[in-house]
Amino acid sequence: MTRQELIQIIRERKSFLCVGLDTDIEKIPAHLKTYDDPVFEFNRRIIDATKEYCVAYKLNTAFFESQGDRGWRTMKKTFDYIGDSHFTIADAKRGDIGNTCDMYAKAFFKEMKVDSITLAPYMGRDSVDPFLKYENKWSIVLGLTSNPSAVDFQFEKDAGGTELYKKVIATAATWGNMENTMFVVGATKAEMLAEIRKIIPDHFLLVPGVGAQGGSLSEVVKYGKNKDIGLLVNSSRGIIYASNGEDFEEKARFEAKKMAIEMAGLLT
Amino acid sequence: MTRQELIQIIRERKSFLCVGLDTDIEKIPAHLKTYDDPVFEFNRRIIDATKEYCVAYKLNTAFFESQGDRGWRTMKKTFDYIGDSHFTIADAKRGDIGNTCDMYAKAFFKEMKVDSITLAPYMGRDSVDPFLKYENKWSIVLGLTSNPSAVDFQFEKDAGGTELYKKVIATAATWGNMENTMFVVGATKAEMLAEIRKIIPDHFLLVPGVGAQGGSLSEVVKYGKNKDIGLLVNSSRGIIYASNGEDFEEKARFEAKKMAIEMAGLLT
Repeated sequence: MTRQELIQIIRERKSFLCVGLDTDIEKIPAHLKTYDDPVFEFNRRIIDATKEYCVAYKLNTAFFESQGDRGWRTMKKTFDYIGDSHFTIADAKRGDIGNTCDMYAKAFFKEMKVDSITLAPYMGRDSVDPFLKYENKWSIVLGLTSNPSAVDFQFEKDAGGTELYKKVIATAATWGNMENTMFVVGATKAEMLAEIRKIIPDHFLLVPGVGAQGGSLSEVVKYGKNKDIGLLVNSSRGIIYASNGEDFEEKARFEAKKMAIEMAGLLT
Repeated sequence: MTRQELIQIIRERKSFLCVGLDTDIEKIPAHLKTYDDPVFEFNRRIIDATKEYCVAYKLNTAFFESQGDRGWRTMKKTFDYIGDSHFTIADAKRGDIGNTCDMYAKAFFKEMKVDSITLAPYMGRDSVDPFLKYENKWSIVLGLTSNPSAVDFQFEKDAGGTELYKKVIATAATWGNMENTMFVVGATKAEMLAEIRKIIPDHFLLVPGVGAQGGSLSEVVKYGKNKDIGLLVNSSRGIIYASNGEDFEEKARFEAKKMAIEMAGLLT
C-alpha cells in the first residue's frame, strides 16, 4: 500500500485505528476451541467485526510462533483474509545483518505479503536497507517504545545531551523516506511526540500503548498529528479481549467503534 | 544445557566451534533438490559431517522463515535431529515487551526446545527477563555485532565517553548471570574483546564473523578466552558452503576439522 492510499483510507473512514491481533490461544472464548484452527476463527471474526472502524491490522508474530508451524500457517491465513482493504503490519521486530534481513524481507513481504514490518535498530542501517528495496512496502523502525524498560537504553544521552531514541529516529529517517519508513513511538509519553515531530514532521508514526496501557488518544493527536494525519494508533487487548464470552465480536465491534468515533471527533 | 555441561563438551572435544546453519535453499547442492525437504536433508548431512568437531549449532531463523510454515517445520526437525549432544542456538534476535517475549520464550524454549536464543537489547530488560525464567536455558544478548553498520548506534558515547555496546553489556549482565546469559561479540573487532572481558570476565561470548568475514581465530582466543574458555566461535558459510557439489559433506567436514584442530592448538 502506498502512502497516498493509506492517507486516503484514513480520510474516508475518519479513523487511524490499527487493531492488534495479539491472539493468545489461552484467552479466546471457549466456544471457538472446537474449530480446526481456533486462532484463525477468532481473528476472522474480530476482523469482520472491526473492519469498518479501522484502517490497519497488526499481527504480533510472537503469538503465532508460540504455536509452531501451525501458528505460522494461521498468521498467513489471517493476513490473506485481511486482503488489500487494510494496511497490514507484521509486528516482528526483526533486525540482523544484510543477507539475513534479505531472508526476513522475503519471509514477510513475498511469502506473507504484508505491507510492513517492525524493525529493531540496534544493528544499524544494514538491518533496514534490505526491506527498503521493496516497492510499496514499509519499514517501521522502533523509535521510542512504550514498555517500562524503554528507559534502559533509549534515553541514553550522548555528550551533546541527545537521547538515543532521537538519534535513532533522525538517522533511520535518512535511510529511506516518508513513503517507505514509519516509526514506533509509544503513547505513554505523548508529550514526547512533539519532540519527535520536530525531527520527522512528515513520517507516519505507529503508536502503541493507547487505552489499556494508559496513553490518551487526544494527547497523541494533539502532539503527533501532522498535515496528512500521519498516525496509526494501535489497540490490541482493549478491543480483542473486550469480552471472552459469546458476545466477544459485539464487544470488540463496540470498542473499535468507540475509538473510531473519538478519532473522527479529533480529526475535525 | 548447563554451563558446566557446555564447558565439559568443549574440553572433551577440544573445540569451541559453533556451526551456523544459515541454509539458503538457493545455495544447496543440486542433487539434494529431489528430496521432500531439501533443506533438512542438507542440514542433516552437514550435522553428520561436522558433529565430532563442534560443540554447538546455530540456526538462523530468517532462512527458515523465508520458506513459510514449511521452513518452520524444517527448523524444528533440524533442532530435533541435533538433540542433546550439542548446544543449540536459535539465532532469532527477538526483542519485545514482556507479554510478547513470554510468547517468544514459549516458541523457542518449549516448542522448538533449543538451549538458547539471541536477543536484541533496544527495548531493555523487559525484553530479556521472560527468557531468564526458564531453567538451563540461555539468553544471548547482542553486544557488539560484526556488521559494518554496527557503528551507527553501538558506538554512541555517553557524556562520560562510554560506548552504548559497553553499557548494554554491563547492564544486561546484571539481569541474569553467567549461567543463563551470553553475549554476541563480533570477531571483526577482536581487540575489543579485551575491553569487553574487563566488564564480563566470566560470561560466555558467542563470536560470529571468524573466517569468511575476516576475524582471526587466534586473536579471538588471545583477547577473549577466559578460565573456562568462555567462547563459542561461529562459522556458517565457510563450512556449509565449502562446496556446492556432491562433495559438500566431505568439504564441510574438512573445514570444520581444520577449525577444530586450530582451536585445539590454541587451547593448549
